Amino acid sequence: MLKNTLFLDALQGKKVQRPPVWMMRQAGRFLPEFRALRDKYDFFTRCQTPELAAEITLMPVKRFPIDAAILFSDILVVPQAMGMPFELKESVGPYLQQPIASREDIEKLQSPLVEESLGYVFEAIDITRERLNNEIPLIGFSGSPWTILCYAVEGKGSKTFDKAKSFCFKNPEWAHLLLQKITDYTIQYLLKKVEHGVDAVQVFDSWGGLLSPEDYEDLSWKYNNQIIEALAEKVPVIVFGKGCWFALETMSRSRASALGVDWTITPQQARKFSGGNITLQGNFDPAKLLSSPEKIYRETQKMIRNFGVQKYIANLGHGILPNVPVENAEAFVKAVAEFKE
Amino acid sequence: MLKNTLFLDALQGKKVQRPPVWMMRQAGRFLPEFRALRDKYDFFTRCQTPELAAEITLMPVKRFPIDAAILFSDILVVPQAMGMPFELKESVGPYLQQPIASREDIEKLQSPLVEESLGYVFEAIDITRERLNNEIPLIGFSGSPWTILCYAVEGKGSKTFDKAKSFCFKNPEWAHLLLQKITDYTIQYLLKKVEHGVDAVQVFDSWGGLLSPEDYEDLSWKYNNQIIEALAEKVPVIVFGKGCWFALETMSRSRASALGVDWTITPQQARKFSGGNITLQGNFDPAKLLSSPEKIYRETQKMIRNFGVQKYIANLGHGILPNVPVENAEAFVKAVAEFKE
Repeated sequence: MLKNTLFLDALQGKKVQRPPVWMMRQAGRFLPEFRALRDKYDFFTRCQTPELAAEITLMPVKRFPIDAAILFSDILVVPQAMGMPFELKESVGPYLQQPIASREDIEKLQSPLVEESLGYVFEAIDITRERLNNEIPLIGFSGSPWTILCYAVEGKGSKTFDKAKSFCFKNPEWAHLLLQKITDYTIQYLLKKVEHGVDAVQVFDSWGGLLSPEDYEDLSWKYNNQIIEALAEKVPVIVFGKGCWFALETMSRSRASALGVDWTITPQQARKFSGGNITLQGNFDPAKLLSSPEKIYRETQKMIRNFGVQKYIANLGHGILPNVPVENAEAFVKAVAEFKE
Repeated sequence: MLKNTLFLDALQGKKVQRPPVWMMRQAGRFLPEFRALRDKYDFFTRCQTPELAAEITLMPVKRFPIDAAILFSDILVVPQAMGMPFELKESVGPYLQQPIASREDIEKLQSPLVEESLGYVFEAIDITRERLNNEIPLIGFSGSPWTILCYAVEGKGSKTFDKAKSFCFKNPEWAHLLLQKITDYTIQYLLKKVEHGVDAVQVFDSWGGLLSPEDYEDLSWKYNNQIIEALAEKVPVIVFGKGCWFALETMSRSRASALGVDWTITPQQARKFSGGNITLQGNFDPAKLLSSPEKIYRETQKMIRNFGVQKYIANLGHGILPNVPVENAEAFVKAVAEFKE
């Protein structure tokens, strides 16, 4: 049985003494030991080598008193397994040489057995769990189908993903075909993660906030909700929709256990929009981790007071920046760990 | 006297038969006649040559039945005049070789007489107004001080402007010094535009939505409001804060005549957050202009019904994309011009 149940307690709405804390991309480029590994192995090698993925997952666990680990991996391993050979290109980021552009491209996508195509992820979970030794829970994750579609159609990162959006507006039927394929495969993938023992899953909808509320419902939420429905009976599901303040009400009526929010919404508004009863996670501005440790500590505790201690998971409002000094990340985690009402 | 007063009527809250319409960056890269000029003159030459700026301003007026013209220019002419030599770099966009990094850099900035440093803008206004011949009103604009700071400190465009944000979080005193300098100069600039006869001004706060509501109040709104206060007695002021749904309530209590909104908020919510009494402008998703003319026409009229005909200016929710077919932009404008309740 888990020794530290704070994270799961908060997800289940149980009363806690202080909120749990973890950081989005806590195992990442801001840690010197991570950068050392990065110099030896490229990004997808790190994702695809279970021993390395497990090692990286545990790096922040060794450094900070965090209440949950999140498996080191990437949302793009799912489209890779489906036949979209994403690579990480220097100074471009994720890159797909032949983006999805037609119905044929979508029909050609595959859904191989996840045990085979993504076996390295499940192996990484096994190794990580063994090493975690039931100290803290392990989070598994996936991208939202909409966010995966964004990369699949745009072929790379973008500020606005206009190519992906206009693809959907011009060819709604193709868009839904693609979204459903990604959804079905993502569900298989996450169910298998649960079989291997992850304690919760998080769906990252990084680009949901580029859509109007109506389009979000149609192109993103519908599919996120299928994932939630398929998983909710087995593990708590967290949905993080960057910029999706407008959908908090809808999300709060789903079977998700918690909703992630970014810093462009106040804790008070987030509580109000989400009905006041669901666990919220967030929402420290990652750029604020570049100020001083004292300021970070103070602002983090203020954030907790604003969200309230119950039904709350302290986290950043998006991924941590690579140039954050380690002592600043530490100040953030400590501010939560030492919080007293 | 102006022949078409629809735009000013909507700004003043007068009853209208249909909403006025214009498009953000309507004089831009989606027009073939603009692209032809672009091949001959670089971006800032076009901004700085009054004859060219006037010619470009009038291009969409000749093509579409729009109800207002907006002067062709750029928000970065203001920091250029203050001593930040922004250039437009191929495949990078706006670029400043030595971004603002210290108090010294800020103290070195100049505030030359706008008549001298930005005389070309006022000349462009004079020529444009003469050619417009009182057919439709002319809009002048500036960037918000926060948005200008983003470029000045980051040195170029960015998805998240983390460098600019952390500069402000680390050195709030410097940030406010810089913001005040930009504000003072922007006010001089806009007042001179009004002297030269622009009928309204719009403040573009393109990056306000990257801030938390509290930081927005401190780093952006405070300065936007100074601009509004300095201008409101002379002309109607429109404030467009991309992603600033959270500030609509505050903004609606200012002396601004209208608030711009993007497509991530429903017309109903925008009315609610802004108190229901101020004119709103927006909010068609620019990526939707890449669907079919029929769909655009239908969706545009639906948008009008959702905002309501009164106290409303039809527009996009952000700048038009360069690859929008002219007939699609035309469908958007026609849908408004032909709207009947």
